[in-house]
Amino acid sequence: MIPEILRQHDAQFFVIYASSKNANFFYATGFKIPDPAFYIIGDDGTDLLVVHEMEKRRAERESKVKEIASLKDLGFYELLKEKKNPSDALCQTLFELIRTHGGRKILIPPDFPSFLSFYLKERMDVEVVKNPFSKLRVVKRREEVEEIKRTSDAIIKSFEHALKILRKAKTCEEVRNEIELFLFKEGFIAEDTIVSSGLLSADPHDIGRGKIEDHVIIDIFPRSKESGYYSDFTRTVLLKKNHEIEEMLEAVTEAKNTAISKIRDGIVAKEIHYTVCEVLEERGYKTIRSKSSEGLIHSTGHGVGLEVHEEPKIFENEDVIKKGMVFTIEPGLYYRKVGGVRVEDTIVVKAKGCEILTKYNDYITLYSS
Amino acid sequence: MIPEILRQHDAQFFVIYASSKNANFFYATGFKIPDPAFYIIGDDGTDLLVVHEMEKRRAERESKVKEIASLKDLGFYELLKEKKNPSDALCQTLFELIRTHGGRKILIPPDFPSFLSFYLKERMDVEVVKNPFSKLRVVKRREEVEEIKRTSDAIIKSFEHALKILRKAKTCEEVRNEIELFLFKEGFIAEDTIVSSGLLSADPHDIGRGKIEDHVIIDIFPRSKESGYYSDFTRTVLLKKNHEIEEMLEAVTEAKNTAISKIRDGIVAKEIHYTVCEVLEERGYKTIRSKSSEGLIHSTGHGVGLEVHEEPKIFENEDVIKKGMVFTIEPGLYYRKVGGVRVEDTIVVKAKGCEILTKYNDYITLYSS
Repeated sequence: MIPEILRQHDAQFFVIYASSKNANFFYATGFKIPDPAFYIIGDDGTDLLVVHEMEKRRAERESKVKEIASLKDLGFYELLKEKKNPSDALCQTLFELIRTHGGRKILIPPDFPSFLSFYLKERMDVEVVKNPFSKLRVVKRREEVEEIKRTSDAIIKSFEHALKILRKAKTCEEVRNEIELFLFKEGFIAEDTIVSSGLLSADPHDIGRGKIEDHVIIDIFPRSKESGYYSDFTRTVLLKKNHEIEEMLEAVTEAKNTAISKIRDGIVAKEIHYTVCEVLEERGYKTIRSKSSEGLIHSTGHGVGLEVHEEPKIFENEDVIKKGMVFTIEPGLYYRKVGGVRVEDTIVVKAKGCEILTKYNDYITLYSS
Repeated sequence: MIPEILRQHDAQFFVIYASSKNANFFYATGFKIPDPAFYIIGDDGTDLLVVHEMEKRRAERESKVKEIASLKDLGFYELLKEKKNPSDALCQTLFELIRTHGGRKILIPPDFPSFLSFYLKERMDVEVVKNPFSKLRVVKRREEVEEIKRTSDAIIKSFEHALKILRKAKTCEEVRNEIELFLFKEGFIAEDTIVSSGLLSADPHDIGRGKIEDHVIIDIFPRSKESGYYSDFTRTVLLKKNHEIEEMLEAVTEAKNTAISKIRDGIVAKEIHYTVCEVLEERGYKTIRSKSSEGLIHSTGHGVGLEVHEEPKIFENEDVIKKGMVFTIEPGLYYRKVGGVRVEDTIVVKAKGCEILTKYNDYITLYSS
């Protein structure tokens, strides 16, 4: 696929410079590395990872890249002695590697660092293209879906644990700590888990603090320490009767489930988003469609995989949804004088319809009426 | 400081585009945000954070930036309707913001994404400069040193916990899990903690697996969940008598302590590194100075703060060490047929000498001779 893109652009190499914190780098190389490295693909079959000497043997053992070289092999240290500046030496090492292998034009991904791209652009043709690995990552392989399922199962277990302690817990912080510790013991890292109550919950990204009031939004999105795959799940739990919040919760639940019922291979992202907007608008709520700053103030969802926010976006975009895509459906309603509610599932698109990976009751009350 | 740099380069704005995973962004704005945002400083006193509408109120509450605008305020959604492509719309939003405020030239940091910098470079003058916040971050304020101390104290407690279970533990994995869980309960996230034994320990970044043999390298580098500050610490523990490993451990211990005794305000980084090399070479070990691929095969140390690897580098570089800098001293010796050893402390430079933040015995044996 990448050699084909290279030929289309009349370019010889595609270059990534990143550490394994970059999902595309990790997906492409299968190599965990704390500091940035070069990954280079050529139209001539080049499949090369360039690391520090110290990482070379580990890269040979652990990465799925065909060829490993070290910066030392490429003459970086001689250039460093000459230039005194590691950044200049790195730029020139890359430039000479490409030039000596017949490179006249290279392709780089959007997030390629400018210190390298500006240096190269003065010396050869450089074009930014959508990262081919971002495209590949959108449709998940079976093993990837399995990993996201594992993370989803752990989320549900941690949420059930949270429900058990919720009535006795005094603060949002306490519940967040319990959820995150539970997940850590299971092999998952959750950070900034949202446990948000009262008026603070009107801010979708406020993680919440203080006393638990009538209702609480719990939004859990951990990453597997082993595989790196995320999942994402939200429920709004009612602890006391609150008519306004309950009506909002009924609305977002209906919006979520109506949207999920429409998902299928071939649907366009914006149709899913507009379904959510319509259900909410029919019930009299404002949405982002009418540029409202209250009501539904965010998109309907986002892809989930090696990143917690990745493609496809489920918003006003024209992306065609395909079998194997994994994303969230997470309508919410937010009013400054009332608070917020949200329900969210992570789903995988099937040949017909979709499968919910985070199956759980939508409407949860912890009071007896 | 930044307005002065702008005037020196005859530029009007310095622009960062990053999420709070980027240490410079977080340091500059004090704002936690999962998706990238613009942070813009102007020679006219501009101090502006541009976020999604949904994050605006939270940014006003939580960030330390003077002025907050949303992409919506800046006309992003009209441009998106026109262009259909979010990336193009984002580029143009930034360009028009800068142009309407009299920007003719901007400065960007080395890691600025190329999709934005290439777009701007076709329309105005753009120059990559060392990130002024990277420079500021090298010398830690008193509160930052306190945070790194807190992380260091937690490391020592987790290491003492590891020592208690080490003789009963069957595998490296078991010890790593115990350390990471201990730290998580204390409010710190440790990942890829190195617990490495036998011949695998000859690879400095191999996290280790399987049976614990004669000795074990334990390298712990967690981040505080609350403050974001790291610390970094390594000890090599002897479980059985092993003459070769013991001699190596004596050598790295002497190298570390000799280097630490030389650290003071005004010393040049390479003097510290060469001190380490000399001690090891005097004892007959090879070092990276002679381009050896065994012996000491990495630099002497690195800065520690909001990133686990940051400036200053302690290697062959000429950086002048200043009071308030925090970095590691971590000599190691690695032989493929023997294994590896390493000792590491994180220190803070004082007016006279330095203070070790991770104080603990260097030479630890768990066998009775």
